[in-house]
Amino acid sequence: MTSTAVYFDFLCPYAWRGLELADVLRREHGLTFVLRHFSLVQGNHPDNAQSRHVPVWWLTDQGAGEGSEAQAGSLRAFLADQAAARQGEDARWAFALALLRARHQDRAELTPDTLRAAAGQAGLDLSRFEADLQDDAARRAELRDDLAAAAELGVFGTPTFVLPEGHAAYFRFANLVPAGQALETWKLYVSVLESGARIETIKRAKRA
Amino acid sequence: MTSTAVYFDFLCPYAWRGLELADVLRREHGLTFVLRHFSLVQGNHPDNAQSRHVPVWWLTDQGAGEGSEAQAGSLRAFLADQAAARQGEDARWAFALALLRARHQDRAELTPDTLRAAAGQAGLDLSRFEADLQDDAARRAELRDDLAAAAELGVFGTPTFVLPEGHAAYFRFANLVPAGQALETWKLYVSVLESGARIETIKRAKRA
Repeated sequence: MTSTAVYFDFLCPYAWRGLELADVLRREHGLTFVLRHFSLVQGNHPDNAQSRHVPVWWLTDQGAGEGSEAQAGSLRAFLADQAAARQGEDARWAFALALLRARHQDRAELTPDTLRAAAGQAGLDLSRFEADLQDDAARRAELRDDLAAAAELGVFGTPTFVLPEGHAAYFRFANLVPAGQALETWKLYVSVLESGARIETIKRAKRA
Repeated sequence: MTSTAVYFDFLCPYAWRGLELADVLRREHGLTFVLRHFSLVQGNHPDNAQSRHVPVWWLTDQGAGEGSEAQAGSLRAFLADQAAARQGEDARWAFALALLRARHQDRAELTPDTLRAAAGQAGLDLSRFEADLQDDAARRAELRDDLAAAAELGVFGTPTFVLPEGHAAYFRFANLVPAGQALETWKLYVSVLESGARIETIKRAKRA
């Protein structure tokens, strides 16, 4: 495996910044990333408090539109993203970024209208997108694979990057990284994970 | 302020590794660190769950020997370290490191015997050490100052370093850093905190 996996949730502003960073790295620096889904609603669900690794409550078992707005919206967005993925890697990145920007830059809710607008912006074949969305069981199965892999890895937040060498870590930063600083920022993160000190956590304290 | 503060608890193996790192940096690279106390027993106490910044339950309000072994041992160790500090900075570092090594390398409990042995190893004036320990109210007041400052900063684990420029972050690593790699490891940590991305967290996921 030579790709870095990145687990993300459309609900998460840090995932948005992480994917913007990864997109620069893949377009301008030849790195490869595989997009995968982790659900914050599932990860933080009280029924799953026992173990990060053995979810009892699965987002993929919930009906469309059920639960909180975050639950319904994130399920809808994940399934749409799985549908977009069927149109190729570049189309999928374009869709995911369009939807993340709509949510976190423009403060749109993850409604069917927002999803359709993102699909249009990303230049997807819209009739194919709708048809792939109709195959709900197949999209849910794909999402379930991602959620199961995330549980196995112990993902707890997004974005979490899994390097080809196996290092896996949540990487949360508050500022969008300018394209000119993307590689340096990425190398810093990788250096932390590869340090001989076996760094497990760097986490800021928040003042009162 | 040109010193880096380091908050630590004798209970914590990561604090031990952090202080070993800081000791190399101060002895061999001219950096200055100020040792300060943060109590894990206090920080994790259920009565303090409401806010990290406004403790209700204070370790300094507890009687000697009360509570769990961790509670009694850590209070005892903190007060002894405040007594050691009265013999100068180098004596205090020697004592703190001797006690951390006794606890985390040799698996000693934080008993009065362990404290006295560490004081001897550190070359403290033992009768002065005992006399300073007897002034319990003064030592508790010093400890309280540290715990209050840690609460204000939002410290939640140890070691937490507070850089002269104000960055404050938990820095957890699993391997003792060889002296020859101390400066590089420290610069990596500082680079993370100073990055324009405003990195808030890098935290490994743990596999099932």
